[in-house]
Amino acid sequence: MAKVKKTPRPKAETPKGFRDYFGAEVTERSEMLQKIAGVYHRYGFEALESSAVETVEALGKFLPDVDRPNEGVFAWQEDAEGDKPGDWLALRYDLTAPLARVYAQHRNDLPTPYRRFAMGPVWRNEKPGPGRFRQFYQCDADTVGSGSVAADAEICAMLSDTLEEVGIPRGDYVVRVNNRKVLNGVLEAMGLGDDQDRKDAVLRTIDKFDKVGEEGVRQLLGKGRLDASGAYIDGVGLSDEQAAPVVAFLTSKGADNAETLANLSDAVGASEVGAQGVAELREIADLLAAGGYGPDRIVIDPSVVRGLGYYTGPVFEAELTFEILDEKGRPRQFGSVAGGGRYDDLVKRFTGQEVPATGVSIGVDRLLAALRAKGRMGGTAQGPVVVTVMDRDRMADYQAMVAELRGAGIRAEVYLGNPKNFGNQLKYADKRNSPIAVIEGGAEKDAGVVQIKDLILGAEIAKNATLEEWKDRPSQYEVPRADLVAKVREILESQGQ
Amino acid sequence: MAKVKKTPRPKAETPKGFRDYFGAEVTERSEMLQKIAGVYHRYGFEALESSAVETVEALGKFLPDVDRPNEGVFAWQEDAEGDKPGDWLALRYDLTAPLARVYAQHRNDLPTPYRRFAMGPVWRNEKPGPGRFRQFYQCDADTVGSGSVAADAEICAMLSDTLEEVGIPRGDYVVRVNNRKVLNGVLEAMGLGDDQDRKDAVLRTIDKFDKVGEEGVRQLLGKGRLDASGAYIDGVGLSDEQAAPVVAFLTSKGADNAETLANLSDAVGASEVGAQGVAELREIADLLAAGGYGPDRIVIDPSVVRGLGYYTGPVFEAELTFEILDEKGRPRQFGSVAGGGRYDDLVKRFTGQEVPATGVSIGVDRLLAALRAKGRMGGTAQGPVVVTVMDRDRMADYQAMVAELRGAGIRAEVYLGNPKNFGNQLKYADKRNSPIAVIEGGAEKDAGVVQIKDLILGAEIAKNATLEEWKDRPSQYEVPRADLVAKVREILESQGQ
Repeated sequence: MAKVKKTPRPKAETPKGFRDYFGAEVTERSEMLQKIAGVYHRYGFEALESSAVETVEALGKFLPDVDRPNEGVFAWQEDAEGDKPGDWLALRYDLTAPLARVYAQHRNDLPTPYRRFAMGPVWRNEKPGPGRFRQFYQCDADTVGSGSVAADAEICAMLSDTLEEVGIPRGDYVVRVNNRKVLNGVLEAMGLGDDQDRKDAVLRTIDKFDKVGEEGVRQLLGKGRLDASGAYIDGVGLSDEQAAPVVAFLTSKGADNAETLANLSDAVGASEVGAQGVAELREIADLLAAGGYGPDRIVIDPSVVRGLGYYTGPVFEAELTFEILDEKGRPRQFGSVAGGGRYDDLVKRFTGQEVPATGVSIGVDRLLAALRAKGRMGGTAQGPVVVTVMDRDRMADYQAMVAELRGAGIRAEVYLGNPKNFGNQLKYADKRNSPIAVIEGGAEKDAGVVQIKDLILGAEIAKNATLEEWKDRPSQYEVPRADLVAKVREILESQGQ
Repeated sequence: MAKVKKTPRPKAETPKGFRDYFGAEVTERSEMLQKIAGVYHRYGFEALESSAVETVEALGKFLPDVDRPNEGVFAWQEDAEGDKPGDWLALRYDLTAPLARVYAQHRNDLPTPYRRFAMGPVWRNEKPGPGRFRQFYQCDADTVGSGSVAADAEICAMLSDTLEEVGIPRGDYVVRVNNRKVLNGVLEAMGLGDDQDRKDAVLRTIDKFDKVGEEGVRQLLGKGRLDASGAYIDGVGLSDEQAAPVVAFLTSKGADNAETLANLSDAVGASEVGAQGVAELREIADLLAAGGYGPDRIVIDPSVVRGLGYYTGPVFEAELTFEILDEKGRPRQFGSVAGGGRYDDLVKRFTGQEVPATGVSIGVDRLLAALRAKGRMGGTAQGPVVVTVMDRDRMADYQAMVAELRGAGIRAEVYLGNPKNFGNQLKYADKRNSPIAVIEGGAEKDAGVVQIKDLILGAEIAKNATLEEWKDRPSQYEVPRADLVAKVREILESQGQ
């Protein structure tokens, strides 16, 4: 006999690695993105919102070579149509792959160059961890169809303006610019010929520069190095002479752009591509200087190595230079909040034609965290004025009050829970972080007045109750009903709202 | 021998039923949603952005009773962890099911009542058709945890304010309010007892009122009706007396709310739940009148039958009353753009407790279409001022010009395509809908001047070239380089930008 199972209640939980955003978390992000969109728009970029769902085929990186092509993406198969198996679809994992698809699909209708910005969630099917989510926001701007380094320079200028617009003051950030071609020149200058294994080993070593410093890189390029844990890491086995261009490259940052460029010129030696890379950096520096973007905002800096493997030309990174305290209370630099560069084979997969492109992606959550760390955001969000309900039969009176307040542009609401317990109404106002409660009982109604309670001052008085000067300060006012809006506005102003 | 297949190029296409949004389509929607969020916020509602992905279990409507629970939703199964099969996940199909999950999950931390608004894309795994997309926006506001009809009245007032705020003038819309309880009272008054089949047949007939009118409903409740195609539709088989309350209900709209309420009172006869429903409608009407929302904006209207089956108390619908031309050029009313009502077992699935709730959902795309039909949106979007490149070695000069223009808050860009063909630069400016092109060749540079071309006036002159008065009007000006920003601003102002 089959057992009848009772259906258990569903669990009220987000899937693992997902989360919800409440109140100010949503509105602050939205405000920041609007400011960024404003700058991008002023630079001539057009908004694009591509669909969140793409065919796995179009996303590309994750081809259906297995039964279930969901490595790194959330993917599913459409229902079959007759004999034809359904397409595999997936949620976008970034905003660049969809841009490639959109540009290839609509290239005859889009202007060339096509400047677009995009902001929205992307999804990654990764193991969730603390602070690592499988849905997060990206905010990108790209110029497709221009091979000119003026396009790269412009993205750097725009990034600088964007950071200042959202509230990172000049001096608290720097946009650093490097160039993959300079690195290629350095590899040529090392005389490694076609030894790709060794070149890759050099690239991996360069990536460690941030951690191990100049001497560490020297050791790792040579015989090897005893790392912090006591383990011996074998080196690439280069001679000091072979390693010299890499070290020169990594340490070429000078007192100003001119000195840096001269050092880079030395580092790439006779390499033609290296010289081209240095020339591009010089042109970028000149264009930025002409636009008024000095080295206090944007600087040529060969120590930007992140992403050098991926990009094909200029690369850039925006770093916040102020210190915050880490989870152990130690000061550290805030670090990178945006990065990008030139990548020239974006559309080729679709059309066979190479289309030059350059762009930047802002780490929305990191930038928000930075603004909160700077106290530019994340103040407690202002709750509504709460009109309390003393007499449930006079709801119309209370509704009229909030209508008046809202009509005056003041955030306000009637308490809509069970009004029996007045204490609960004030607890509710407290939980909503309400600045003011309005009270009109029967006696007030008869007298034509309302009570207006300054909840912020009230909390202040309660906190300082032992101090003489606070003792007798009133935080509740009786005013004629007709003065409701005026008095509420006066209190809000006194609260600095 | 295995054949080596050449990998074909991927198709650059959105999946079927998905689309991309470009430029003004994105920014106009965003601006409208910001305005709506402003009204919701003023009413004391808090933003919520829940994850786009939910467990199928939490979404509920689509239980995994088959191998692949994707009926109506896009769903996929997580990888197994050891012996434990992975959870089924799905994209949200609306914003209400996630609200239920969020409220159940966070109810101890959220205020009661909890007022939240949410806006964002939802996904439906349906057969795509012309104009029907599988990803679209919703924009909802709900009050969870209040059983008071004041909450319903407030949602109606907010809906009215919202429509005016986004640009639908008073008189061009009406919010209609009905109540499921009145309908229940009507069913009681019909004396059908426990005959659920007949009650369901009556409900289905009521849903057809919009189409077949009073006489049609009378026939369908009785013996039956010959429909437009010539087919005979069997009726429910009620006597005229039994059918009378339904007909009275559907035709009870009076000259004002008082008359409508009196008619409804008659229609529900001695039914207790019916009387309760009428009393609720009366209270809503009184509350709205107290808030200044007269019947020119919000009206009790028993002809609102959509959604009556789903909701448990008051239901409301916002209709736009102006006419537009349909695809065949015939005038028709624009119709519904928002709807909602009270649904009281939102959270019960999760917690076992009944939690009263009421809310509204705005059809974002329909409202946008309405605003475009009214000419409130969808004017051609303003392109950037384009600084052309006459001499590619002087890119820094051009970059300095756009930096100045942007610094003055003017949308501007340098042409970043191949500058060889000047005609292409003007074509680009045209495609971008640019108001102005700036030109500085070698001669201008030497003379310290720039040429500023009014592209909008230029197009106007070209269009009217045969008219004497237009013939010799200049649309290009030579000004000192130092006057660039001032002259550009002057032209933009003359263009009404």
